[in-house]
Amino acid sequence: MAERSYFDWNATAPLRPEARAALEAALALGGNPSSVHAEGRAARHAVEIAREQVAALVGAQPGDVVFTSSGTEANMAALTPAIEVDGEKRPRSRLLISAIEHASVRSGGRFPPEAIEEMPVDADGRLDLAALERALSRQAPAVVSVMLANNETGVLQPVAEAAAIVHAAGGLFHVDAVQAAGRIGCDMAALGADVLTLSAHKIGGPKGAGALIRRGDHIHFPSPLIRGGGQERGLRAGTENVPGIVAFGAAAAAARRNGGSEVSHMLALRTRLEAGLREILPSAVIFGQKAERLPNTTLFAAPGMKAETAVIAFDLAGIAISAGAACSSGKVQPSHVLAAMKVPPELRGAVRVSLGWETTEADIERFQNAWRKLATTLSKGERGIAA
Amino acid sequence: MAERSYFDWNATAPLRPEARAALEAALALGGNPSSVHAEGRAARHAVEIAREQVAALVGAQPGDVVFTSSGTEANMAALTPAIEVDGEKRPRSRLLISAIEHASVRSGGRFPPEAIEEMPVDADGRLDLAALERALSRQAPAVVSVMLANNETGVLQPVAEAAAIVHAAGGLFHVDAVQAAGRIGCDMAALGADVLTLSAHKIGGPKGAGALIRRGDHIHFPSPLIRGGGQERGLRAGTENVPGIVAFGAAAAAARRNGGSEVSHMLALRTRLEAGLREILPSAVIFGQKAERLPNTTLFAAPGMKAETAVIAFDLAGIAISAGAACSSGKVQPSHVLAAMKVPPELRGAVRVSLGWETTEADIERFQNAWRKLATTLSKGERGIAA
Repeated sequence: MAERSYFDWNATAPLRPEARAALEAALALGGNPSSVHAEGRAARHAVEIAREQVAALVGAQPGDVVFTSSGTEANMAALTPAIEVDGEKRPRSRLLISAIEHASVRSGGRFPPEAIEEMPVDADGRLDLAALERALSRQAPAVVSVMLANNETGVLQPVAEAAAIVHAAGGLFHVDAVQAAGRIGCDMAALGADVLTLSAHKIGGPKGAGALIRRGDHIHFPSPLIRGGGQERGLRAGTENVPGIVAFGAAAAAARRNGGSEVSHMLALRTRLEAGLREILPSAVIFGQKAERLPNTTLFAAPGMKAETAVIAFDLAGIAISAGAACSSGKVQPSHVLAAMKVPPELRGAVRVSLGWETTEADIERFQNAWRKLATTLSKGERGIAA
Repeated sequence: MAERSYFDWNATAPLRPEARAALEAALALGGNPSSVHAEGRAARHAVEIAREQVAALVGAQPGDVVFTSSGTEANMAALTPAIEVDGEKRPRSRLLISAIEHASVRSGGRFPPEAIEEMPVDADGRLDLAALERALSRQAPAVVSVMLANNETGVLQPVAEAAAIVHAAGGLFHVDAVQAAGRIGCDMAALGADVLTLSAHKIGGPKGAGALIRRGDHIHFPSPLIRGGGQERGLRAGTENVPGIVAFGAAAAAARRNGGSEVSHMLALRTRLEAGLREILPSAVIFGQKAERLPNTTLFAAPGMKAETAVIAFDLAGIAISAGAACSSGKVQPSHVLAAMKVPPELRGAVRVSLGWETTEADIERFQNAWRKLATTLSKGERGIAA
């Protein structure tokens, strides 16, 4: 395969070298972490170090980290009417979510469909806080789930403000930080998150690991999603994915260590990329540009551009980008995020370019060259239609 | 660490070299299998090869394999009242399980506790088929779950006979083949299993992967345990654990290829081990010895022996064994399997020795030497009590 440029870091990030090394070392840990013999204790020890590393990334206590197999599983496990706070057993009968959440949050976890209510976003793709406040005033108690950064636009959500509103109304607040972690600060206390979701492979860890993190063990899940053995303090049964968890820990430590310089690096390149986008085709639209965004994400559209065609054209030019979220079986489906932002239908053929710490100037240049070619055909198409 | 002998293969098996090589190669697959670009397609291709390999181990169609994060998750996902067969939407209101199932089956999946009924076993730890038939005749329709081989005793269950009884009563039959796969034949058609569970790390794959396998897509799960994106044909959401799945596939292929010779190898060594056990301490009891068992498992007890003490004594002698199942948070808990077999309380301090393809004559010798020492202290203890 010729040299390629990978611009789909929001779908999945390449494995960090630190994570790869940790994973390979962990493959030699033959024991089951629940076994009492030396082999078991060695595996347990490695998992507990990873738990500390992941906790540190979000300012949590290690004992409040529950390892899962993915961000999706963590979201499903978090969203249940049966969350207890301070031993209070009153079930929370409603789930409020923003209209731009990930499919796993939109599935509602263990809430029945009729209990789920969506909160609108503005034209920049930011949660409407007044709408949230109104919804909470109508009825209580609720679980509220808001993502820290949207996976398609990269737009940051007013999570701390939402947390204050949710807590004032006696609600419980879940934050899906899957796309934000390692790219912006994710301190649970600062965010006001009661429960938070992470995914290993978005921060340079391996696919197959995620975490559900509580802000203190006063938050309890009496009926975990996956039950059986007593692993993860009874909160998630099944033999732990030791190599995946160990590599997740190493990735979290690296993300925490390198975060600042990686952000500057991505931001500088993204700025150049976006300037080129508009310079080459002034009618191109970058979504959420007026809002605070992740430093690595650009979602854009242009009149006449079809997402499927653009993704394939870029792929043939050696560039991996995506049409919105990757997680829905490879089929390009209309984006619920753009619909919620009330983007006109002719601009919903948007494509997402997402950068990472390995992205180089040469990658940006390859992207610009491919975009120049595609933009030319789009301009011709426009004239064709106008003629 | 001095050289050690690992006799806890039922808790987790060391990674097969073929699985390790496949896993390491898969770490370079940077894409998300749901992405349409070249990186995504390469990851998808690797997952689909693994699906064929896992399907082949149990005589299933690749399209009927749903990858999960563990055997526990697969069991939880399988056991739900909302299984549809041939589009029939009638929920199955009861779950019948043997009294010796794994904790994840005993948790009942998504059945309410009052819907779960346990079927007794005989003194050798084999399911009582007459009791199953009586229970099915009382009410219908039911989901029935019976393990192919018990994890503590290794005793094989009369699964094909149970399947005939379940199907005659219009029930749906789930088989937990986690301990059996790779050690005895697991052809789904021969077993009569409608749904079957596998775990990668018990057959020499990595921790963090499992599978729920249907016998044809006429069996449908309308409400999967983990929902969100459309992965795994909509039956299990979340980005696939690509390296774990690829290694699972390689382990399944190796298990299928080597199965016969590994069984002879383990059986010869286990025969020697059991002969030595009884020769050194004639009062030692091997459970399920009159029944058909896995070729690699010996669960034994001796008057006056405490499981915790024995596990620690063996560990100090460089030998990893376990006290029953490993999966319950490292604490030694009374075995529900021995209780179901009506083993007298003084013999419930049993320990499990489980072998694998890497077990050697030298391992057996080390075990015998440690056992000789422990047996001496037990005999002294017995005399002390008798005096």
